Amino acid sequence: MEESILRNFFLPQSIALVGATSTPGFGYGIPLFWKKNGWLDKAYLVNPRGGKIHGKEVYRSVSDIPGTIDLAVVLVPSAVVREVLLDLGRKGVRSVIIESAGFAETGEEGKERQEELAELARKMGIRLIGPNCVGVVNTQNRFATIEIMDQSMEPGSLAIIAQSGVFGNILLDHLPSVGLKISKVATLGNKVDLDEADFLEYFVEDHQTKVILVYAEGARDGRRMITALRRTSRKKPVIILKSGRTPYGREATRSHTASLSGEDRIYDAAFRQAGAIRVANLQEMIEIARVLTTQPPMPGERIGVLTTSGSLGAMTADAAYLEGMKLASWNPGTIRKIRSRAPGWVNVKNPLDIGPSGIFPAACEAIFSDPHADGFILIPVIPYTPIENYFRMGLQMKELLGDWAALREKIAGKPVVAVLLGYGRWTEKLKDHCGQRIATVSSPEAAVKALSALRRYGLQSRR
Amino acid sequence: MEESILRNFFLPQSIALVGATSTPGFGYGIPLFWKKNGWLDKAYLVNPRGGKIHGKEVYRSVSDIPGTIDLAVVLVPSAVVREVLLDLGRKGVRSVIIESAGFAETGEEGKERQEELAELARKMGIRLIGPNCVGVVNTQNRFATIEIMDQSMEPGSLAIIAQSGVFGNILLDHLPSVGLKISKVATLGNKVDLDEADFLEYFVEDHQTKVILVYAEGARDGRRMITALRRTSRKKPVIILKSGRTPYGREATRSHTASLSGEDRIYDAAFRQAGAIRVANLQEMIEIARVLTTQPPMPGERIGVLTTSGSLGAMTADAAYLEGMKLASWNPGTIRKIRSRAPGWVNVKNPLDIGPSGIFPAACEAIFSDPHADGFILIPVIPYTPIENYFRMGLQMKELLGDWAALREKIAGKPVVAVLLGYGRWTEKLKDHCGQRIATVSSPEAAVKALSALRRYGLQSRR
Repeated sequence: MEESILRNFFLPQSIALVGATSTPGFGYGIPLFWKKNGWLDKAYLVNPRGGKIHGKEVYRSVSDIPGTIDLAVVLVPSAVVREVLLDLGRKGVRSVIIESAGFAETGEEGKERQEELAELARKMGIRLIGPNCVGVVNTQNRFATIEIMDQSMEPGSLAIIAQSGVFGNILLDHLPSVGLKISKVATLGNKVDLDEADFLEYFVEDHQTKVILVYAEGARDGRRMITALRRTSRKKPVIILKSGRTPYGREATRSHTASLSGEDRIYDAAFRQAGAIRVANLQEMIEIARVLTTQPPMPGERIGVLTTSGSLGAMTADAAYLEGMKLASWNPGTIRKIRSRAPGWVNVKNPLDIGPSGIFPAACEAIFSDPHADGFILIPVIPYTPIENYFRMGLQMKELLGDWAALREKIAGKPVVAVLLGYGRWTEKLKDHCGQRIATVSSPEAAVKALSALRRYGLQSRR
Repeated sequence: MEESILRNFFLPQSIALVGATSTPGFGYGIPLFWKKNGWLDKAYLVNPRGGKIHGKEVYRSVSDIPGTIDLAVVLVPSAVVREVLLDLGRKGVRSVIIESAGFAETGEEGKERQEELAELARKMGIRLIGPNCVGVVNTQNRFATIEIMDQSMEPGSLAIIAQSGVFGNILLDHLPSVGLKISKVATLGNKVDLDEADFLEYFVEDHQTKVILVYAEGARDGRRMITALRRTSRKKPVIILKSGRTPYGREATRSHTASLSGEDRIYDAAFRQAGAIRVANLQEMIEIARVLTTQPPMPGERIGVLTTSGSLGAMTADAAYLEGMKLASWNPGTIRKIRSRAPGWVNVKNPLDIGPSGIFPAACEAIFSDPHADGFILIPVIPYTPIENYFRMGLQMKELLGDWAALREKIAGKPVVAVLLGYGRWTEKLKDHCGQRIATVSSPEAAVKALSALRRYGLQSRR
């Protein structure tokens, strides 16, 4: 594929919106969003009624538009989409997003309409996203074909490829509140033309993008998707969430974006072979994405765990076993260092449970300098009431837990993840203490899964 | 077991704290906590140095205490615990909590000390919690043998039995922020005497308690624990989180609270047979607890799902299949009702994905009145930017989504769970809209698991 065609979807010089309206809805909201973000000047609005929308002249048809159009966004009812596409083709437009629903997802009639669309696009050399989607987002130039919130527009390093438009949109709303910032988004809908493989190929070369999230329900061409996943995973981690895993889910996705989901186990094996990181649900996706965007690949499989709660240590050990990771065996020197600082009741093992001994700083320093561990999980869960007493006495976080930022810099090539649990004021303090270079998650299981993903990525990227 | 002995742990008339101190630590914090909560008047503080702590006279030894003691809390170093226990026994104390660590969890020597303790308690007729624990909490009378935050003391209906003291304490810190309120807590530590079975038997009769959470690492007597779980589950749902599931985890729990974890699969089958709800992690435990404390048992296995996102609908369907639940087949009347209100592109199935059609109120009313569904999952995920426009136009939540509180009252015998995802301001509004009678969770998987638990409880409680 010529790269320039996909580039038009994210970096258009001129855009047309077919189906602009003067009453609330996408046709009203999108040009308003463009106005706010400096794109209305580069836009042509189209509606048979003409007039003005947000102070901008409205063309009665595509053929009335005077200039060239890099990208067209189509919002008209499904029955007239074909006609609009014909107009766009004649006008020389080669990149089109069809957001309109009412195609294969609604039944036989819609399926026929969709097939006509696909054929027409092929004939006219048009590359198409959709139908039944919300198109694209590029946070770098603040271009989007959906209305999203300002905070979702803050540039980041996470690219998203989502089959479903609503789901992509929900992710955009949700991710900033969990500390994730986005580079680009493509929502694909019914995928009559462009699909996951096309955008994987585009995002792997995109300088803003470090990690790619894929939400898929089914692949049109499984082999093509797996090939693209394999190529991409060598350079950037790809996290994939695929629904339609069961007969019920397949039934549900069939009507929703009109693609038959493939057999789940085959996908599972293929994703793994391709080096992609498959997650079971949204929560896992978010936490692993947060770790992957901030941590280096894991150079080996041996995890070191420092905890103030034996129970959470045991849960971490269980998770490590289930994920096929190893627990590091501490160096004799590490054990000596810790024993010299710990009260007698501390049993120096891995997970290292120091309970309320107060030796977190020394223990953290000791395990971080142990070459037998390839990555670390810190579990500084401490009941808040005694902590509050320490704060009242003027104790600082660095005295309580150690200077994590400084300690962390000395092992820049190893991932460090902290599990935050407990009272909100305490976890907020901990989040600050972790800073930008230590990733935070909310459970031992997520910490281990993220390290396992970093390990797989470490192996993959060396191939 | 005589009920009165366990009652002394939660409703003592007089208490002794052996190991009170005038410098920060448990020995200082606990009497301070008692002072705040009106318990210091009923307390005797003991420390060989005598003097005063928080204005209260300190006795030099247990034998100096003038009155009777319902409950003694022991905080002294492990080496002198035996001596203290001997004093307490001679004084006639029959309920003792030993919080001190330094027993079987530290190795052979500690193990011997612990065995001596167990023997002594048996001889003297003392019932013991611990050692290596933080004892008990009763929110109703604001009695606790640990310092906890005020918000954790708000009376609720969730009882907790936790092997680990720190973990119990962390739960106490964390639960109020996720909307859970507690009735009573028992942390068990090394369990030389009282164990999970004893507290299950006590909490099943406790009027404040509706749901019981158990965090276990291993059982001293598996058969006894399973018997108690079975008896309890008939009357109240029991959620159990057990770590030490794997060889790594077992190794970790061995040093931590000194009990060998049993084979995980055997436990899994036994828990299931006993009607207990086993959860895989803390997050799942919290979300299921929240649903169980507010929703009725599920009268059948057929779930009805209403969603604005086909993707989240598909994830719900996948989860339902994996949990062995069924998706309801809508009544023909329900389908007609929805079709009459929905645009043509809405495919009336279950999960019912209404996309951005805006028919949530009508669809919710239609499915709630369908007798073919035994419980409901609502997934009102909507991108915030268009929503904000509606709010600006003066639209209310009831107009947007329907009057959930009123609709819900008509099906009081069926559980209703809402999945909240997206922008924080929107999920906060949704939480308000759900009110007290609709439970909220953060993922489709949690919603389904909770309904599955309510279903199992529905079956169990009829036995």
